[in-house]
Parts: sequence; structure tokens; C-alpha cells
Amino acid sequence: MHASAKDGGTSEAPAGHGRGMRALVKGERRPGLGLREVDTPAVGPNDVLIRVLNAGVCGTDLHIWEWDHWAAGRLRPPVTIGHEFSGQIKRLGVETEAEGLLEVGDLVTAEGHIVCGHCRPCRTGNAHLCARTRIIGVDRDGAFADYIAMPATNVIPLKDISPDVGAVMDPVGNAVHTVLEGGDLTGSTVFVLGCGPIGCFAVGIARAAGASLVIASDLNPTRLEIATRMGAHVVLNASRDDVIARVLELTEGDGVDLVCEMSGHPTGHAQALASARIGGRVNLLGTPSRSTEVDFARDVIFKGLTLYGVTGRKMYSTWIAMQQLLKTAQFDPRPVITHRFPLEGIEEAIAVIKEGKAGKVILEIGT
Amino acid sequence: MHASAKDGGTSEAPAGHGRGMRALVKGERRPGLGLREVDTPAVGPNDVLIRVLNAGVCGTDLHIWEWDHWAAGRLRPPVTIGHEFSGQIKRLGVETEAEGLLEVGDLVTAEGHIVCGHCRPCRTGNAHLCARTRIIGVDRDGAFADYIAMPATNVIPLKDISPDVGAVMDPVGNAVHTVLEGGDLTGSTVFVLGCGPIGCFAVGIARAAGASLVIASDLNPTRLEIATRMGAHVVLNASRDDVIARVLELTEGDGVDLVCEMSGHPTGHAQALASARIGGRVNLLGTPSRSTEVDFARDVIFKGLTLYGVTGRKMYSTWIAMQQLLKTAQFDPRPVITHRFPLEGIEEAIAVIKEGKAGKVILEIGT
Amino acid sequence: MHASAKDGGTSEAPAGHGRGMRALVKGERRPGLGLREVDTPAVGPNDVLIRVLNAGVCGTDLHIWEWDHWAAGRLRPPVTIGHEFSGQIKRLGVETEAEGLLEVGDLVTAEGHIVCGHCRPCRTGNAHLCARTRIIGVDRDGAFADYIAMPATNVIPLKDISPDVGAVMDPVGNAVHTVLEGGDLTGSTVFVLGCGPIGCFAVGIARAAGASLVIASDLNPTRLEIATRMGAHVVLNASRDDVIARVLELTEGDGVDLVCEMSGHPTGHAQALASARIGGRVNLLGTPSRSTEVDFARDVIFKGLTLYGVTGRKMYSTWIAMQQLLKTAQFDPRPVITHRFPLEGIEEAIAVIKEGKAGKVILEIGT
Amino acid sequence: MHASAKDGGTSEAPAGHGRGMRALVKGERRPGLGLREVDTPAVGPNDVLIRVLNAGVCGTDLHIWEWDHWAAGRLRPPVTIGHEFSGQIKRLGVETEAEGLLEVGDLVTAEGHIVCGHCRPCRTGNAHLCARTRIIGVDRDGAFADYIAMPATNVIPLKDISPDVGAVMDPVGNAVHTVLEGGDLTGSTVFVLGCGPIGCFAVGIARAAGASLVIASDLNPTRLEIATRMGAHVVLNASRDDVIARVLELTEGDGVDLVCEMSGHPTGHAQALASARIGGRVNLLGTPSRSTEVDFARDVIFKGLTLYGVTGRKMYSTWIAMQQLLKTAQFDPRPVITHRFPLEGIEEAIAVIKEGKAGKVILEIGT
Repeated sequence: MHASAKDGGTSEAPAGHGRGMRALVKGERRPGLGLREVDTPAVGPNDVLIRVLNAGVCGTDLHIWEWDHWAAGRLRPPVTIGHEFSGQIKRLGVETEAEGLLEVGDLVTAEGHIVCGHCRPCRTGNAHLCARTRIIGVDRDGAFADYIAMPATNVIPLKDISPDVGAVMDPVGNAVHTVLEGGDLTGSTVFVLGCGPIGCFAVGIARAAGASLVIASDLNPTRLEIATRMGAHVVLNASRDDVIARVLELTEGDGVDLVCEMSGHPTGHAQALASARIGGRVNLLGTPSRSTEVDFARDVIFKGLTLYGVTGRKMYSTWIAMQQLLKTAQFDPRPVITHRFPLEGIEEAIAVIKEGKAGKVILEIGT
Repeated sequence: MHASAKDGGTSEAPAGHGRGMRALVKGERRPGLGLREVDTPAVGPNDVLIRVLNAGVCGTDLHIWEWDHWAAGRLRPPVTIGHEFSGQIKRLGVETEAEGLLEVGDLVTAEGHIVCGHCRPCRTGNAHLCARTRIIGVDRDGAFADYIAMPATNVIPLKDISPDVGAVMDPVGNAVHTVLEGGDLTGSTVFVLGCGPIGCFAVGIARAAGASLVIASDLNPTRLEIATRMGAHVVLNASRDDVIARVLELTEGDGVDLVCEMSGHPTGHAQALASARIGGRVNLLGTPSRSTEVDFARDVIFKGLTLYGVTGRKMYSTWIAMQQLLKTAQFDPRPVITHRFPLEGIEEAIAVIKEGKAGKVILEIGT
Repeated sequence: MHASAKDGGTSEAPAGHGRGMRALVKGERRPGLGLREVDTPAVGPNDVLIRVLNAGVCGTDLHIWEWDHWAAGRLRPPVTIGHEFSGQIKRLGVETEAEGLLEVGDLVTAEGHIVCGHCRPCRTGNAHLCARTRIIGVDRDGAFADYIAMPATNVIPLKDISPDVGAVMDPVGNAVHTVLEGGDLTGSTVFVLGCGPIGCFAVGIARAAGASLVIASDLNPTRLEIATRMGAHVVLNASRDDVIARVLELTEGDGVDLVCEMSGHPTGHAQALASARIGGRVNLLGTPSRSTEVDFARDVIFKGLTLYGVTGRKMYSTWIAMQQLLKTAQFDPRPVITHRFPLEGIEEAIAVIKEGKAGKVILEIGT
Repeated sequence: MHASAKDGGTSEAPAGHGRGMRALVKGERRPGLGLREVDTPAVGPNDVLIRVLNAGVCGTDLHIWEWDHWAAGRLRPPVTIGHEFSGQIKRLGVETEAEGLLEVGDLVTAEGHIVCGHCRPCRTGNAHLCARTRIIGVDRDGAFADYIAMPATNVIPLKDISPDVGAVMDPVGNAVHTVLEGGDLTGSTVFVLGCGPIGCFAVGIARAAGASLVIASDLNPTRLEIATRMGAHVVLNASRDDVIARVLELTEGDGVDLVCEMSGHPTGHAQALASARIGGRVNLLGTPSRSTEVDFARDVIFKGLTLYGVTGRKMYSTWIAMQQLLKTAQFDPRPVITHRFPLEGIEEAIAVIKEGKAGKVILEIGT
């Protein structure tokens, strides 16, 4: 149900920019991004046009900036970058308007995975695994721009949630998916292995879900400090602490009920499998760039472990849970947001992320 | 995502009927149905136009024919009746065509509940409970006609399933939902209480799901004979047999793991609660017209029972499971189909159902 | 695996009482209880002998005191009363000692349902539904005494949990079972209908489990005040408030995800069914003394509700979750404990409960 | 709850053998087994004494015969071998007799994992993962003998199941655990990778559970023939067929819903991960002797796979399901039983297994 190329929109016109707008575009097959004047996106009959207010900068954007192996194999320039955002509806496609469920002026965010809606995963609650997925800011134009057009079904209203928080619901959703997949955490023990923004969000989600003990590890003290602010009971510095020994010690020798593997590193995988209790669970979100040696007999079979690979956000049970946690302030992602830049500050934003000094960085694009 | 009123269709025109077609219409607020010449439906951009081949006659159609209390409160004539059907795609809306997932000529059936797609139930795998549901043949024009327009997302391809079987997938889906909700039935015991078409389908689904013992009851010997052909190990005639005593006897005094309550009668409810084993489950599909006295202490709390109310079909996990069972012939609904009539034979069709002589009755509308 | 009649115990003898001890005994088939000198219980090879420290007084004890219809039908005097307790192990049966898993001096509580261990419910995680269950203080001698003998498998160590809290783990476990059955509550809405001690515990458990909104109702202002102290976001006085209207208003018209029915009254049942959201769940623990009229079509089937009858505590997943919540102080039951009496004060204890002035009342028996 | 060393048994004495009996004993720390005259086992108060009728020879027994690295590290000779068996109760311990749930003369089999009953896994339905597990025929005396003493809680009555079938319920239970863990298989596709006895049993269990397509692979044509007799729709010879390509072809390019990994080989692991569909499941039972390279990004995370390590049988939900499947003949393991030998024929039994000519080999010990 991706947006069509033609313009079937109704209601008010995008204010102030005529037909042009600013956009951070990967224009050439080489490192960097360019701030360009481009056409405001066309609005298909099932789409909405959204004025972007805030947008989050993700590790994926860093890969695209650097034009690494993955980016070179996937992107087809020119493409506007950015997939985490919040904004305000400015225009509705004719079909969307006929439905009457969204309105011009609504503050919204959106699921950035645009899926087919017809395949078996889409039909069975696993649309996050649709093989025809097109990701905004990667496979089609994204959100580092004044406007973005989105299919109405992907749009999520921001009731009682502020736009800066709305701009990070995509990665918060990754954390929600990782933490809540596997059943009730009331009174349980959780180990978050890797404290990038998603790991730090995972710490807070685990607390909100009733975990009794949340342990977090990373090599970077700045990140561990953020994890502490998000509610980690114990943080381990993997460069100094014997991570596995400490996790076992903190759990009376048992290991934790749930490991959230956010590092994507073979060392992390080894720690994850050794830190999970007998009959426990390891949910893997960190994407490794190389393979890992696994001793299935010792680490999976005799322990009766369950491993689960996390992609995206469940469409849309993850979003429903997240909306509730955010609007009631049971979970507050703001301690993770450490830097804010205007759209023109993208180079600086990329720099603070590369230096390891940042939690989540957001762009302030519109108002 | 209901079809819009305007016509945005492309591809080939409906063959042979100009702009008119035959339809069984509830035209007046009184009993009966009229065979009329009406306009072929408009095809919105997200719709498909389907040439109807076969259609199933349901108890709901009987209520509409008779213009009972429920029908008078819900329908707004004129409306074309019928919600169970199969057919062939004749035309695609422009957006549907752009998606490229359905094609003119495809044999299809469809989920007849058209839902909003935006509410909490729709967003969490419970679209069958969407409060904005509009049902074809009830709230908008239905399938007892030469053509029907359906939103593309509701359309289900009939790969390796024949059109007469496709025409009964709506009630088969009710049975699948009732039987499979509650977990794996391998080696379990199931009691189907009420052997109308959905009950008879439920018998076959329970067998296909690996149940060890399937008991079925009804007052009507014709229906019990069909239940036997569908694989019931034991049938009980509720007018002669002590139903509860027999179920307990057949299960070594324990009662069954799952009761599928298809009668919608207080007597059925009492039998259902008494026939379920301690820790068992009662899934209720039969719609009662009056209330039931329940002894919650004795029958629910001390027994640790789970009760679940069944509405519609899960969208679309029920359909995915059903497609697999039908195309591999693990489940064959055809013994339940006892009568076939042309569109003009609707009065006769209604009559055989009222006489209690029929299993499922289908209309042969197109070829 | 009930305790055998003979004495196969080893280790130290019960200190200080010779072979006699104090016990509150239902000695005659009429109202009241007598404080008697009785033999210290025999310790079978699989048993432990426990010095009782604290014991909780339950509504069941009130029924026994008053010798109501239920009590007269079930108890066979003489029997020592009391089923909620904590204590210290004083002696181990020979088989228990050989196992080496419990030790003299351990502070413990115990599951009071003694089950067969061989039947289908016992074999499939549903021992709380074992038909051969014998309850201490009802079917065999209980805990309102200086000592009680318990099968070792029923004994639960009190690691980092104080004896007064240990004495109420039986009813806290009822609350845990009621609240946690039905899946993860993170970000959900819960309505606790009835604020006796178990209802008040349920409020706190729902908060600890990550519920976003916990509503509690009762007719008794004292109980509502305790519910507030346990963390209820909103309390409704059912004698004044329009309960259903208020629950719908607090949930934007949807109703709650989970209703915990603790009242056991037909009015409560009606409120429970009406207050649950479409696709929601009602867990019923309150034991009604008469039947309820249920409109299954409107209230269960069209709403797609799940109802579940709660008996006892899951053996032993409920206990494992509860231990974790108590030892980490995520859940603190102490605001519910309003009165403490010595063993001799039973008449006064019964009186404050009957007057509706009490939350949980505990007896201080040993030290 | 392991059997105590002393003899507290009651009822009739073991018939015919005085105090001695035959047993296959690993007496020395080197290859081979000796048929010896040993004492009939003592019967503790919670035990039963069973006259062994049939016993299954397992791969584990082969390891013990050969005295491989694992066996040398685990066994402490002298120990009687054998853990799969059926028999008849000859004597009850005093506590067991007092319970009245088992009787002299009952035909039974038993769960061979004797667990503590007090730890977290034991308390939460995961007793198969108890760290204190003692396995008969490995850690304590086993079933290749005229008599075996077992704790009563491990004993499973053989109602309507013949003793030769009863003798293989231990490995059938491994198959049940592997196939049924992960939810309902009705209409699903299953790939059993490795057709030793447990793999062949898994084929039949998957059929009984309602799978639409069961594919089996092995290198050994004899085993593939048995898999076909057990109901495999398609068998693949991994020495000739491109296994992954064929599985994808048979599933319209999707891969299967469930892979049962029974090979324990890195090549099998690679095939398992590549053969599972997006969002699918791999249950691993085959115990590898070395580690496997896993590309978590490609094979687990982006596919949203779930992996689960299978140990033993769930105590006792696996047994309950298995009893039902066997007594109703929905599942018949007998095509897998290819050879029968007397107790004295152990050397020949070991030989046919090593030659790869056998399915399941059973010993006929008593009558």
C-alpha cells in the first residue's frame, strides 16, 4: 500500500514553501549528504502530507552518510534521508479524507516500514517481516525534510505525547519489541547488553514492565550514565568488569530471565548466552557484521534457551503499548536525548554520534 | 478502508451486462427478497470488482428474509443481500492495480467484514472486533448478485481451492476461529454442541487439528448424520441422550478439553459448562436471543474454566490456516453442502433451511 | 502426597511444649472456635514441622466460625483452623532430611492446598485444580496453633521476606494469580472490583506489573482508602458512583483491558462484563453464593471477551513471581494489614472483620 | 525426591529371584557392559519396585558402551545401564501405598529424569531443566535389569498402551517435546532434519498434530524408509538432494513453519536456519559435539526466527499428550521398532545400531 506517484491530495496546501522544500538528500554514490531544495512530495489518495517537526538521527543514517557496504548495496540516489520523525498533518489524500479518521492539524508520528498488506507475514501480525517492505529514508524519500508523504495506515496520532518524544518512537518501538517479546516481565531479571539509544530505552521499558532487576553493560561510560538515568539497577563497564560473573553474582548464580542483545558483536553473543538463566530467553536486536561461533549443546540445548531475532516494531501492537507508556509517563525517553540540531546541523549531529558522546540526537526541523 | 462511492476502476469492463446486473435485494422493510436489475457496483481506487460464481446462504440471510427484530433494527433498505461468496476478479481500482498483488482473472473469496484499520482492535490483530465494521450484505451491498465490489485488502486468492468451497470459507472461518482459539488440540477431546453448518465444519476442523475424540450433539438427525460424515467419533441426539452424562462417560469422568458452543441456547450453555473438564475451555459462537443463568462459583471459578466469545474470523490468521487446510484437503467442507440453487431459487433455498433438512445451501450465480 | 499419620521425623524436638501445644479448634458442629491444648502434630517422612509465627485470618475462617451452610457441609470437627501462616522449621521428616533442600531454622510459609501430584491437573501445571486437594485448616489441621506439619513440597522458604508478610502470601498469591493470568499488563488498564484484602493486594500487584491505570471500587470507604494506599489511581464508591460510566469515562469510552472480579456478587458480574473493553478479559475470583443472569450475546460473544475462573494459586509459578515481588519490595502488602492480635484474641479478630473496619488481620502466635 | 537407600517397601516380594537379579552393568571404566547378578533394588517409602518387561536401547547407551569422553566424564561405575523401559509394579513403598494412587500389578513406564522438585525450574513447569537431575542408567541404576526402583511421582501408568510401546515413550516424548513446542501445527509445514528414532517419531507426531506437509531428511536410506512409513510426505537424501533448495521449492519459496533439528551437526544447523520461513521456528534437539558458525544478522534477526533448545520431556505435559496420542492410536511408534533382543543380546543390539541398519532396538527382558 505504498503511496502512488500522482497527487490526489485535498485540503489545505503546504504553507509557505510554494512547491519547494528543504531536504537532506543522498544525491551521489559517495559519503556525505546535501541540503537541497526539492519538490514537496505528491500526496496519493491513501496518503497524508506531514509537516516534519522533529526527526531522530539513527545509526542507519550514519551508515548512509559514510556510504558503507550496506548503504552502497541498498540505496538508489537521489533519496531524502531520515526515518524517525514527528510532525503535523497538512493535507489528506482523497481516500484518507473520505475515511474521516485523520484530520489536518493532527500531531503524528509514523511507522517507517511500508508493507504490502497481502503476504502471509502481513496477514498474521508479522508485517514487520514483510519481504516487500520499503523503508522511508532508505528505499523511498524520508523525513529529514520539511514535508513527508506517508500512507495513512502508517500514521500514528500523538495524543498527549510531545513532538520531540514522537520523533524517537521508532527506536523506542525497537526497544519495546525487544523487551516485551517473550511474555510478562513482572518480578523478572533483565540484562540489556549494549547501551546505545535503543539499549537505554530498553532499560526504561524493562523498568516500566515491572522487572525487579535491570542490569546494563557497555564499554562507554557516557552511555552507562544514561542507562543509570533510565533506571538500570546496576551498570557494568565491559572494559573493566567480568560481565558474566557479575550477572551471575547479581542473580544468585542463576542468570537472568531475559537478555536483550543490543551490541551485535560476537563477544556480546557469548555473554548473552552465558548470562541467560536455564530456561531463559535471549532477544537479539543488535545487527552483527560477522558470524558468531555458537556451542548449541552447552549454551542452547542443555539450557533450554529460547532465542528470538528482533526486526522493527510489531505492526501495530508495539505502537499501542508504546503510546500508552508514553502518554501516562510510565516511560520517559527524554534522558536519552542529549543533543538537538537544526536541519543544517546534520554534519555536527553525525560528528557527535561518531565520537560516542551522544545518546539520541534529534533534528529540530519545523514548528 | 471501505470502498468509496466514486468509480476509479481500470482494466476490462464487466462483461455482458452493460451497466446493469441481477441482485437479490431487500427493498422494503418487510419479509422477502426481490430479484432486481441494479447498477453494477462502482469500483473505488482501492477496490476490485468481482464476478460472483457461488454464494452461501446463511442463517443471517434467513433473519433478513423474515425481517425479524434484529434485521429491522440493523438494515437500511434497499441493500443487496449475501456475504459468503467466491468469484473472479474482473476489474482493479487504480491503486489496487498499482500495487500489483491481485490480477484480473484471479479466483477469489473475501472477508466480508470491512473494518477501519486504525482502531486498537484493528491495530492488534483483533480487527474482527472493530467497532466500525461494515458487513457486506447487511450494512452495504452484498454478494447475491452478478458482481460485487470489495476493498482489495479483504480479498483472499483461491489457490487450489474450488469456487464452491471458496463460497463457504466465511462460515468455515467461523468454525476455524472457534476450534483453534485456545491452543494446540493435538490428542485432545472436543465437544461440538450444535450441528448447523458451522458446527459440522467445526467437527472436521477439530479432526484436522489432531483431536483424539470429537463428540457432536444436536436435536436434528439429519445434522447429526452430516456431523458423522465430517468425522465425529460420537454423535448425541439431545432429544434422547443425556448429553452431559454421555460426555463424562466418554471422557472417563473428566469432561472435554474444549467445548464449541454452537447452539446459542441456555440449555446448550448449561451443557457446555458442565461438559468441560476442570481447567478446560468453552468457546461460544452460537448467538443466544435471551440471557442465561450462570452459577459462576460451581461452573467457572471452582473449575478454573476459560470462556471465550467468538465473533467473525481473525483477520487474517484464520484465513491463512483455512487456506492451508483446504488446499491440502486435510479438511473438506463438501459433505456439509447439501443443496445448490440458481439465484432465482432463493425462496426454495430459504425453505429447505427452515425445514431443517439442509446442511449448507449454496447459490450458483455465475460461471 | 499428604502427610502420613505416623511420626518419622528427625532432628530437634519441638521446644518448650512437651507433646502438647495451643490450637484454635472447631470442636463442635456449631458457631465459635475453642482454644485447646492438643498434641503437637506427627511428622511423616516427607513432612516438616513448623513453629507458627504469624497467621492471617481469612473470610473462610469467618465462615467456619459462623458455621454457615458451606462450613457445615465441608468440615469434620475436631479440626484446627487457619491456612495462612509463616513460621520456622523445627523438625524434618527422614525423607525430607535426606533430600537436604530444607533445614531446621529456615523461615518459611506454605501453600495450603495439599494435592495428589498424580492427576492430569497436577501433571500439567494446574495442581490448584486437583480434585483430591485437601486444604489445611479446612480438611486437615491448620495453622492457628503453635505448630503445624506440612509436606515438604508445599513449603516455601522466606528469603528476605519478613514473617508478617509471609503470613499473608496465601491471599497475596490469589491476587497475583488473578492479576497476572492473561498476559503482560505493561501499559494496560485494570479495574479491581471489590476491595477486600485480596482486591487491595490486586491493586498493588497490578501497579507492580506495569499497569497504566488501576481503578478500584467498593461500597466501604475504609477499604477504598486502603486501595488508594496500595496505589489505585482512581477509587469508585459503588454506593454513590455510576461505576460503569466512570470506568468508560476514564478509558476514553473503551473499557479496561482486565477486570479482576473480587466481589462475587451478580451486580459485580454485570459491572465487570460492561467495564471490560472489546477483546478484553474478566478474571473472576469472588465466589458468588447465587447465580447470575448473563447476556452472552451482548456481553461476551459480540465483545470477544475472555472470562477465567480463579482458584487458589498456581503451583508454583504464582509463588515464584510473588517471592520476587516481595523480596525486592516492588510490592508491599503491609498497608493492607490493619490489625494484629494474639492467638487468644481470635474473637476480637473475627469481630473487626465482621464490622468491615479491617483490611487484613493477622495473629501473632510465636516468636 | 530421589529414592532413599533404605528399604521401606511393603506388599508382595519380587517373585522368583530371591534377592538377586540380572543386570547389564558398566562395571569398569572401559568399553563394554557386563551381564551380572546383582541385588534387587531397595524400595524407599516413596518408591515403587517395577519388574522390567521391555527396554529401549538409546544412543546414550552406545556412548556408555564405547566409554567415550562424555561417558567417562559422567558415569561412576558400577552402574546398571538403561533408561527407556516399561514394566509391572511389584511392590510399593509405604508412603506410596498410603497414597493409594498406584497398585501392585499396574503396567507402567517412567520418566527417567529424577528431579529435586524444589528449584525454580521444577516449580514452574520446567523440571526437565532441574540442575539436580539424576538420570536412571547414567547417574543411578537403570532399567536393563529384571527390576528397577523408581520414585512414585516419576511413574506413568500404561492405560491401553502395550509394554513394547511403553518402552519407547522416553524417546517418543523427546519427539513430542520438539514438535509441539511452539504452538498449534494445524495446517503447517514441518521439516524434520535427521531421521534417527526420535526424528522418525517426530514425523509421526507432526502428522498427528495436523501438519499439512512433513519433510524429512537423512543420509541413510534405511532411516528415510522408516520416515516414509511414519508418514513423511517427502523424504530428502542429504547425500544427493540439495536439501535447502528442495524445502524452499516444496513451500513455494517460503520455507517451513517449523524445523526439528535432530542431526546435531553444523551442516544440519545451517540447513535448519535456511529452511525455516521468515517468522518461523527452529527447535534443536540433536546434540552437537562441536560449535557452529551462525550468521545471526541474516539467519535469525532479519528473519525474525525463534530458536529453542530441547532437553528431555516436559514433566508432565509431554507425557499427558503422549498418552492420549498412543492410547487412541493417532500415533503409532511401532514402525520405528526394527529389532528385538533378549537381555543377553546387548552386544548384537549395539552392533545393529552402529551399523546404521536399525530404527529403534528394544530388549525383551521380562514377561
